[in-house]
Amino acid sequence: MPSASTPCLLKRLGIARPILQAPMAGAQDHRLAVAVARAGGLGALPAAALTADALVEEIRRFRQAADAPLNLNFFCHRPPRPDAEALERWHARLRPLYAREGLDPSHIPTGAGRQPLDESGLAVLRAHRPEVVSFHFGLPEPALLDAVKATGAVVLSTATTVAEARWLQAHGADAVIAQGLEAGGHRGHFLCDDLALQSGLIALLPQVVAAVSLPVIAAGGIATAAAVSACQALGASAVQIGTALLLAPEATPSAVHRAALRRAAERPTELTRLFTGRPARGLRNGLMRDLDPLHPDAPAFPLATAALAPLRQHAEAQGRDDYTPLWAGQAAALASPAPAADTVHALAAGWR
Amino acid sequence: MPSASTPCLLKRLGIARPILQAPMAGAQDHRLAVAVARAGGLGALPAAALTADALVEEIRRFRQAADAPLNLNFFCHRPPRPDAEALERWHARLRPLYAREGLDPSHIPTGAGRQPLDESGLAVLRAHRPEVVSFHFGLPEPALLDAVKATGAVVLSTATTVAEARWLQAHGADAVIAQGLEAGGHRGHFLCDDLALQSGLIALLPQVVAAVSLPVIAAGGIATAAAVSACQALGASAVQIGTALLLAPEATPSAVHRAALRRAAERPTELTRLFTGRPARGLRNGLMRDLDPLHPDAPAFPLATAALAPLRQHAEAQGRDDYTPLWAGQAAALASPAPAADTVHALAAGWR
Repeated sequence: MPSASTPCLLKRLGIARPILQAPMAGAQDHRLAVAVARAGGLGALPAAALTADALVEEIRRFRQAADAPLNLNFFCHRPPRPDAEALERWHARLRPLYAREGLDPSHIPTGAGRQPLDESGLAVLRAHRPEVVSFHFGLPEPALLDAVKATGAVVLSTATTVAEARWLQAHGADAVIAQGLEAGGHRGHFLCDDLALQSGLIALLPQVVAAVSLPVIAAGGIATAAAVSACQALGASAVQIGTALLLAPEATPSAVHRAALRRAAERPTELTRLFTGRPARGLRNGLMRDLDPLHPDAPAFPLATAALAPLRQHAEAQGRDDYTPLWAGQAAALASPAPAADTVHALAAGWR
Repeated sequence: MPSASTPCLLKRLGIARPILQAPMAGAQDHRLAVAVARAGGLGALPAAALTADALVEEIRRFRQAADAPLNLNFFCHRPPRPDAEALERWHARLRPLYAREGLDPSHIPTGAGRQPLDESGLAVLRAHRPEVVSFHFGLPEPALLDAVKATGAVVLSTATTVAEARWLQAHGADAVIAQGLEAGGHRGHFLCDDLALQSGLIALLPQVVAAVSLPVIAAGGIATAAAVSACQALGASAVQIGTALLLAPEATPSAVHRAALRRAAERPTELTRLFTGRPARGLRNGLMRDLDPLHPDAPAFPLATAALAPLRQHAEAQGRDDYTPLWAGQAAALASPAPAADTVHALAAGWR
């Protein structure tokens, strides 16, 4: 049951192949986006962890290297109110780990680290006009979204449930990314924190396709041409690929992340709040064994991250991944170390 | 990438359509199996909760009504040692619920309720020769499995991980049912209790297909022709359907279970140990809200069940589903109330 909206969506996105590269903050820069774009897919740059200047530089490098559309990805969470007590509960959990690692538990850094789309991001959009803007965690406030759309960008956002897909359609998205529970990295939910609402892709995708008239892009656990064929059969108009590209030479996961991905079959992935405050899927590591991966003391997104930085830096210097987020989807064992273009071509071959 | 082994598997199973009915203890009898078998699929009878005499009667009725192969399904768990302390911890959790419902908390029943395949089951197999015998939770001990195979039955069992699929192949299964995390009812894992090892079907299925040379049957969240097409694309040789048949007039879920399934979109499914002691997926109900669905005090399978019977009976008499296992997969909202034959035909149409 291939969707009639596929040619229409690809035309709108300006791409030849129905493969979108998932934006992966901390694990890629313009090089992966360029490689995917040159192969006919949609390259993406994650903006949430970059300053406006750094983002502009990434866009410039992409534009120099690829004559192709670009997807800029933003978070649109509401930054949490500072809550000293909540932060202290988190630090109390981490102090024994600092002590164990020989770090000073009286100096735990704080900070946000990730920003939602704001006026400075909008200025970048206005100046550099990416063809596509995608959001994680819903959509920005109406005035800001209108300003984004006024730049001419096609707007995508992620739904983890039928209710979220309907909400995105009602609030102005141009296409919906249906994110199966298999997906690596942050869950995109924004209407309700109840993780039991979230389904595997084979259950979610047909329900989202039936619920909205927008084109639907499938995401989560897609790492083979067969999985691309399966998503097409389920009614997707395109697929979004993340983990399947993480071992490409053009991707930039940390050394310990890359090493863990190479041996992904050896440990499970799990949803965890420990690294950022929001549930995200990664390969299980030391921190996730030490603490409940969904520990209630991890503070609100994105405030959990800063306090881990010294632990992470210290361990990574020793080649240990105990405090590093090892984002990976459930098909991580199928990720190929081939150049990104080869993976895009191989996966696109599954599309009939 | 349709598997070359599909015609071979269907021939071996003796069926015309690549649709296996999932055995669903407590929610079906011979009537559903007959309806599926007459429609060209493989009908199944769940044996674990029946006495040998009751099972023989079910087989007799199936044979009277359908000239088609039959799948008898057995559990093969190791019955747990009685552990009075563990049972007391469970009863202590339930006493406040008994009191709240006006039931006598000093009379909490105990018992097993579900039996693994044993000599009496084997005698039934020898006398009645079902064409297919399927197992949940692994395979029986080698001598017992040999005796089953000596009856001529094709042997199926369920894998939730690549490791389990390999184990089943090494230990004598004739085909592997790859059970995605979407599936309703009991998880079939048997090598390791770590639920993080279990994946959505779109990630699991290609990995299982690549890991074993046996035919692979896809299960979990399959409720539409599109999902059947998707499973074929992912390399399945057939599919197993459970929840998608639960609203059929030939199925026999309890009245509250049927009512909950009719409105499945209104609440999430969740894995819970509360009803039997093993993780199983069902629509969230009162008990799952009252207690952690994976509460560590639920005793080992299948000892959790008996103590809930009075609560369940009491609540069901009032039309409440608070203590009833509402087994359902993540695609429950797509289940059709049509006769089972219509659903079998509709789903089989997705197979190219």
